[in-house]
Amino acid sequence: MTTTLADCRALDAQDPLRTLRDQFTLPEGVLYLDGNSLGVLPKAAPARIAEVVAKEWGEGLIRSWNTASWFDLPQRLGDKVARLIGAAPGEVVCTDSTSVNLYKVLFAALSQQKAEEAPGRSQASSPPSGDGLGVPSPGGSQSRRKLVVSERSNFPTDLYIAESLCRERGFTLKLIDASELATALTDEVAVLMLTHVNYRTGAMHDMKAVTAAAHAVGALTVWDLAHSAGAVPVALNDSDADYAIGCGYKYLNGGPGAPAFAWVNTKHAGQFEQPLSGWWGHAAPFEFTPHYRPAPGVGRYLCGTQPVIALAGLECGLDTVLAAEAFNGTGGAMAALRTKSLALTDLFIRLVEERCAGQGLSLVTPRDHAQRGSQVCLSREEGAYAIVQALIARGVIGDYRAGDSQMPDILRFGFTPLYVGFEDVWHSVEHLVQVLETGEWRRAEFNRKNAVT
Amino acid sequence: MTTTLADCRALDAQDPLRTLRDQFTLPEGVLYLDGNSLGVLPKAAPARIAEVVAKEWGEGLIRSWNTASWFDLPQRLGDKVARLIGAAPGEVVCTDSTSVNLYKVLFAALSQQKAEEAPGRSQASSPPSGDGLGVPSPGGSQSRRKLVVSERSNFPTDLYIAESLCRERGFTLKLIDASELATALTDEVAVLMLTHVNYRTGAMHDMKAVTAAAHAVGALTVWDLAHSAGAVPVALNDSDADYAIGCGYKYLNGGPGAPAFAWVNTKHAGQFEQPLSGWWGHAAPFEFTPHYRPAPGVGRYLCGTQPVIALAGLECGLDTVLAAEAFNGTGGAMAALRTKSLALTDLFIRLVEERCAGQGLSLVTPRDHAQRGSQVCLSREEGAYAIVQALIARGVIGDYRAGDSQMPDILRFGFTPLYVGFEDVWHSVEHLVQVLETGEWRRAEFNRKNAVT
Repeated sequence: MTTTLADCRALDAQDPLRTLRDQFTLPEGVLYLDGNSLGVLPKAAPARIAEVVAKEWGEGLIRSWNTASWFDLPQRLGDKVARLIGAAPGEVVCTDSTSVNLYKVLFAALSQQKAEEAPGRSQASSPPSGDGLGVPSPGGSQSRRKLVVSERSNFPTDLYIAESLCRERGFTLKLIDASELATALTDEVAVLMLTHVNYRTGAMHDMKAVTAAAHAVGALTVWDLAHSAGAVPVALNDSDADYAIGCGYKYLNGGPGAPAFAWVNTKHAGQFEQPLSGWWGHAAPFEFTPHYRPAPGVGRYLCGTQPVIALAGLECGLDTVLAAEAFNGTGGAMAALRTKSLALTDLFIRLVEERCAGQGLSLVTPRDHAQRGSQVCLSREEGAYAIVQALIARGVIGDYRAGDSQMPDILRFGFTPLYVGFEDVWHSVEHLVQVLETGEWRRAEFNRKNAVT
Repeated sequence: MTTTLADCRALDAQDPLRTLRDQFTLPEGVLYLDGNSLGVLPKAAPARIAEVVAKEWGEGLIRSWNTASWFDLPQRLGDKVARLIGAAPGEVVCTDSTSVNLYKVLFAALSQQKAEEAPGRSQASSPPSGDGLGVPSPGGSQSRRKLVVSERSNFPTDLYIAESLCRERGFTLKLIDASELATALTDEVAVLMLTHVNYRTGAMHDMKAVTAAAHAVGALTVWDLAHSAGAVPVALNDSDADYAIGCGYKYLNGGPGAPAFAWVNTKHAGQFEQPLSGWWGHAAPFEFTPHYRPAPGVGRYLCGTQPVIALAGLECGLDTVLAAEAFNGTGGAMAALRTKSLALTDLFIRLVEERCAGQGLSLVTPRDHAQRGSQVCLSREEGAYAIVQALIARGVIGDYRAGDSQMPDILRFGFTPLYVGFEDVWHSVEHLVQVLETGEWRRAEFNRKNAVT
């Protein structure tokens, strides 16, 4: 028996999380399946941002550093993120961009490996030596651990940062396919840098198993949680991960270009300095001393003055996700959201298979729940870009990602369980059916190919 | 004949820039002399920020990358900054924090010096070799130019970043007093890193002369314009400076933690990569290629996704300064503002000398216009902190900076000519007189020293 619109409505009617959707302003006529690019606007955000602008900036002016506790923002918001990624209070800061944070943590991880191989230190668990700053003098080292391993299909900006840092710090970036992970993990690997949920395929790594495998060969792990935080349960401490960073404007709904976050395992946090040693990461930032002394713990991962207004937007976004905690006393917000997320992506896959058979679509995202993020990607030999454009013209917003030698072009659909409903899934697939069956996408394809430029 | 309140009112009445003040929301009962810490709120900002939040984020969602031209923001705003610092369109980007930007440009300058000393390259004007990325492999170099020279009294975060980069890149940070500059410039100096206007004293360097002296020994210059942009005329290209960065939330009125800016001399801009090689600085950012290829020119100084809402605030701030262009057809905004700025600081100095004689205050800021920023600092052996607190309690907002071995504690007053008037100067000094003559500050001092903690 095939799935019907009535079935989808029944799922919405039974959905215990349905009211969470009321936290958002969703544009009229839009079915938004792109929360993995930019989350939607929380209803609370305009008023809160206006308050920060008019009151904290306009009236409080410089006094708001004290009266509005601006200095606490990165750590106070970090504590909220911690509840979503299996971390503890005091372990996360919200700051800078994802790329900048990746630079900091990858630098720290590489410095840690160099320090552990320095003469006279043979134990993998030894603390860093010397001035406690953990930045070895450049060059001269005949390090055994010379590789940073990552996936060829990792998000490009992660690879760009790693490429630059490897060249700078004397490491080699080795790119592999996920299937080669087991064989790639050798005792030459200094750092395994992975994105937990792949941006293009939606495939999810088993963080605990992969981290254990990395640790077994003495490698440290750096996890990018851009498509995980707010999307799937993450258990950083339970996985004994080493470093992690993530994005504030996707599933965390923090607004365009919202500050990102960084997490460091407590066992590393107080030991290594990252090189972006600005005033906000100083142990005594208001003493204006001429020499840098890193703050204890993750506080040293802060650098310059943070965008206060943008942080206010991020906090509104974080609160929309944390509201799901009310629906699951023991498992936290993400356990409740995960159940719905899987139901949404299962439904989408089932409807596409029932209604788009023979239309040339292939399922890219794993069927196995344990390997799936909160998105579904379809590939097609022809017209993927044009189909996405035709859907957007109809108000169904997903996005397109180019294929490569291993895979045709991709149609990507993100399902944020906070605001996407089951009936939305039905209508999205209905539009997809119509775009494919009417050949309406061919007009978009014609226009693209024949555009007068 | 001493200066009177009526004299000050007359100066306001004659002030051609008086209407520029109407661009701002100034809190009731506040005399704000701290625009060098955080500029005041432009009246246009709340509505513009609300529009970005509700329309661009809320309604446009991911489509706003195209429809609202988010991708152009850092360079479009950079072009506005360029008009204030003697730079050309396309030479400036607004992005990240001042500290992060300093890391980028100082790294680039140090890499440039290393590349120029690499084997086979003896001419100081040679372009970088190899892959054009300018990041030499670490270590092994017996560089003649091993020093980064800066002022001991430079803003601490600048010194922290330099300290970290020097250790990382194999250079030595040498801190001097401004008076030692001439002798410190030797052919061992790779980079001279200075803040144009000192944050604590208000003393201003002669950028052109200092740059020429640095170039004469083969050093590159990195200028921090945090207390210059929007405060004093800056002529980067005319001075043939090499690299510069600056702050968006002080005299540019961009809001708390507003994005900062970076400028690179066109002759260097296309040659060197900075290590924060994120997607936004890629030559083809939307192609998602796995390898980094830096954008031409200053675009490569962008890294990750920028805070769109914060950039909207910064643009409103920039527009308040650029509004002064209407008052000086040939000299630009800063020429008009400089005339008023000097009149304000001259008046403040004169009133303090006329009315606070014998109160133990010393003038820290240079009397010479050519050496003065847009602030006036006074020092006092006793009670500086308490006096500033007593003034703030009266609504006169300046700030306190601790002294050192060379100078007692400091009372710092910033004069943003856009919104500070001559009568404001009168009343500020009147409050200072009362705080000193009544000894009212001693109560604050008593409370500070005897606080129950």
